[in-house]
Amino acid sequence: MIIIGEKINSTRKAIAQAIADGDAHSLRALAEAQAAAGAHYIDVNAGTFVGDETERLTWLVRTVQQEQPLALCIDTPNPAAMDAALAENKNPDVLINSITLEKARWDAILPLAVAHKARVIALTMDDSGMPDTAEQRLEIAARMIEGLTGAGIAIDDILIDPLVRPVSTDTLHARRTLDAIRLIRARFPEVHFACGASNVSYGLPARRHINHAFLIAAMCAGLDGAIIDPLDSQLMSLIAAMQTILGQDEYCMSYISQFREGKIT
Amino acid sequence: MIIIGEKINSTRKAIAQAIADGDAHSLRALAEAQAAAGAHYIDVNAGTFVGDETERLTWLVRTVQQEQPLALCIDTPNPAAMDAALAENKNPDVLINSITLEKARWDAILPLAVAHKARVIALTMDDSGMPDTAEQRLEIAARMIEGLTGAGIAIDDILIDPLVRPVSTDTLHARRTLDAIRLIRARFPEVHFACGASNVSYGLPARRHINHAFLIAAMCAGLDGAIIDPLDSQLMSLIAAMQTILGQDEYCMSYISQFREGKIT
Repeated sequence: MIIIGEKINSTRKAIAQAIADGDAHSLRALAEAQAAAGAHYIDVNAGTFVGDETERLTWLVRTVQQEQPLALCIDTPNPAAMDAALAENKNPDVLINSITLEKARWDAILPLAVAHKARVIALTMDDSGMPDTAEQRLEIAARMIEGLTGAGIAIDDILIDPLVRPVSTDTLHARRTLDAIRLIRARFPEVHFACGASNVSYGLPARRHINHAFLIAAMCAGLDGAIIDPLDSQLMSLIAAMQTILGQDEYCMSYISQFREGKIT
Repeated sequence: MIIIGEKINSTRKAIAQAIADGDAHSLRALAEAQAAAGAHYIDVNAGTFVGDETERLTWLVRTVQQEQPLALCIDTPNPAAMDAALAENKNPDVLINSITLEKARWDAILPLAVAHKARVIALTMDDSGMPDTAEQRLEIAARMIEGLTGAGIAIDDILIDPLVRPVSTDTLHARRTLDAIRLIRARFPEVHFACGASNVSYGLPARRHINHAFLIAAMCAGLDGAIIDPLDSQLMSLIAAMQTILGQDEYCMSYISQFREGKIT
């Protein structure tokens, strides 16, 4: 599983405050804690700083990587902020979050991915809006994969985000995303996925269980990457357990060693 | 989901002691707590009392149903104990745990199921031993379903146990059981399932996560019944969440009402 640590996001009040205060120490500690817990990429998002997002985001990149050049997932729809953050980034293994098939965003982000040899999260959305069915997501994913590989990006560097919508607004929303993962995995065995879970539980109580159940179900469908809180030890334990259940953990070695390291409790 | 509460089992030391002491109060409280937490059937097992299992099991049945006639899942491979316990049982909705295709067990248990109009857990096992592949489990399940329905038992009264084996002894054991559930569900859309999870994690540390992940994965494959600890609120919350994720919970009404009742925390 490719784990993207989601915690450094300015939509969280404490993070917005830490960015506003220039609290490098806390932000770096949060990045390092996520990496230590198993995150391969640390998401950085300063999207709530309208007007000076570019400056805030490049500061975040510089701050987080100051002591160790952690791999980042640069999270902005703003091409100028993305370009500046990629230029600031010190680790060649970097992830763009995200490109879509919306024409303006595609045209602005694709050249950045190519120029910086970045991996790309491709969100299955185009100018006609958010897809409803699994087949629509597959069709958009197929067009994106064709476009991205055509521009020289390796399929191994593409992570499809199958667009998670709240089950509270349509009983079948989660099921359609699961079906989309299954269809995309079958058509493109080498592509990766990266999806968040928190949208799925929007508007519901006790959201944690819904998010956990969704991610586990998505792993059954073929999900191999997720944007999550790696400090949620119950979720990380379930993910490790799921790899064992799915036969992806020879002799349960990974599960046992994560247990010995105290990561599974 | 058909939930079978597993806790009143004499392989657990405290239960064996309570049975030996004739501690009706604790055993009844444990049965009622499981029912209140959402168990549709209360498993009763006195299998460790070799020699007087029949007497102990009928006492358990009488004791558990003394104040309210809870639906039971009578758990013994011993036909004499099964017969006596079924005769003692006061609730017409009763579950036999279990029949197999082993000839001696089949011949002894089938007439009891028919005579008492009981529902039956059918464990996919025959005289050639435990099945290894998903296809072997499907083949045994098909023969059992044919035999049981041929004897007049409705398909709605059959719960297939697809035989869970420890992932610690073969990396693919869990995966094969999941595949079996998918195959059996596809061939027999109306049959039910009832499987336990605890075997899957035998020999591993932090077994709880493995058990939880397995049950959630099994629900993705089509599982609609399980022999579990209904007092494990994390597992019960995940099961409720999973029904929502799978589109089985219109408007999330069941999840929300379980949350309001304090069953999901």
